[in-house]
Amino acid sequence: MTTESPLLYESKASPNARRVRIFIAEKGIGIPMRAVDLGAKEQFSDAYKAINPRSQVPALVLPDGATITEVTAIWRYLEETYPERPLLGGDARTKALVAMWERRAELDGFAPVMEGVRNAAASLKGRALSGPHAYEQIPEIVARSRKRVENFYDDFEARLASERFVAGETYSAADITTLAAVDFATKAFSMPIPERHLALRRWYEEVAARPSAGA
Amino acid sequence: MTTESPLLYESKASPNARRVRIFIAEKGIGIPMRAVDLGAKEQFSDAYKAINPRSQVPALVLPDGATITEVTAIWRYLEETYPERPLLGGDARTKALVAMWERRAELDGFAPVMEGVRNAAASLKGRALSGPHAYEQIPEIVARSRKRVENFYDDFEARLASERFVAGETYSAADITTLAAVDFATKAFSMPIPERHLALRRWYEEVAARPSAGA
Repeated sequence: MTTESPLLYESKASPNARRVRIFIAEKGIGIPMRAVDLGAKEQFSDAYKAINPRSQVPALVLPDGATITEVTAIWRYLEETYPERPLLGGDARTKALVAMWERRAELDGFAPVMEGVRNAAASLKGRALSGPHAYEQIPEIVARSRKRVENFYDDFEARLASERFVAGETYSAADITTLAAVDFATKAFSMPIPERHLALRRWYEEVAARPSAGA
Repeated sequence: MTTESPLLYESKASPNARRVRIFIAEKGIGIPMRAVDLGAKEQFSDAYKAINPRSQVPALVLPDGATITEVTAIWRYLEETYPERPLLGGDARTKALVAMWERRAELDGFAPVMEGVRNAAASLKGRALSGPHAYEQIPEIVARSRKRVENFYDDFEARLASERFVAGETYSAADITTLAAVDFATKAFSMPIPERHLALRRWYEEVAARPSAGA
């Protein structure tokens, strides 16, 4: 299939797809999107597997037909193709700091919430890990996931007590992943930001008020 | 501390540090390195925590004193600072493909080996996850980690049956992570590449023969 613009397959139910939608909104670019109905298990249909054999969203189909999966890879394509309003950093130092903080937000925040939700939800029995392979849930993991999210909130409270945004002075992809992690933890894991974390709450109010947060 | 070149804190015992050493060797650049003695728990010393409060290697200290942790963030700094012989891709499309395949190698290969080893080793009791926080081991995870590594080998066998390197025609960071995952699985998790996986073995022979593999 050849299109002039890339085409994004996504779902409003997917926190990973949201990370890409926010990125696109912050860039102010127009990328056509097609919804995949996760509730109806459309991601496992033959039609969708022909696009992404891993049955995951988001997936970005490039004009030449190549499919890019994984949020950070899709971001990389968009950042290189639409360099204005950089979200992955400017100079080498800032690019490294954004990459580092974005990854901490994912590994210490986003991933534990995902792991906790997937190992707990009755609807995800036998699907404890996203992707093409079936894995049984391990309920023992869930308590550890909660402890990890607590530590994530403490660590990011300390960070945001001294910085306006997660990676420093400028809004970046690190804020996108942190916002997605906080909202996911709040809605799906009953773990909102603790009241005592004033810096994190100050940061949240600011980034959640940006128009992109509604994307 | 100000230095002219960045300084890499690393350890021969760390598969993540190896990913950075191989990257540096492939670039053909000279980056000063300092060994951290993980066997003596030097990463938990006050001196090292002053450099990296997360007690992890690798860590790259920049000329202005900023510390960059996380392999992919260190790679990003090195790629931007020393752009010759790119290992994270050339054009936007290739950069996205390298990012995608490198991440699959990590999430589907490297991470399960790490998870399996850390949740099994008697020496890592109470340290099931790397980083500043203590987490107890969950032995049930180990069998799932083995299943994930089996699937990783199957999936990468299929990929390498049609491509010379993991991300396509050119050697890239995706090959580095895949090599580090295979060697880590072989040495620390008793899971070498299965005999029947001929394409993966062909690929392994080629990349393991590069001088960088000894870094």
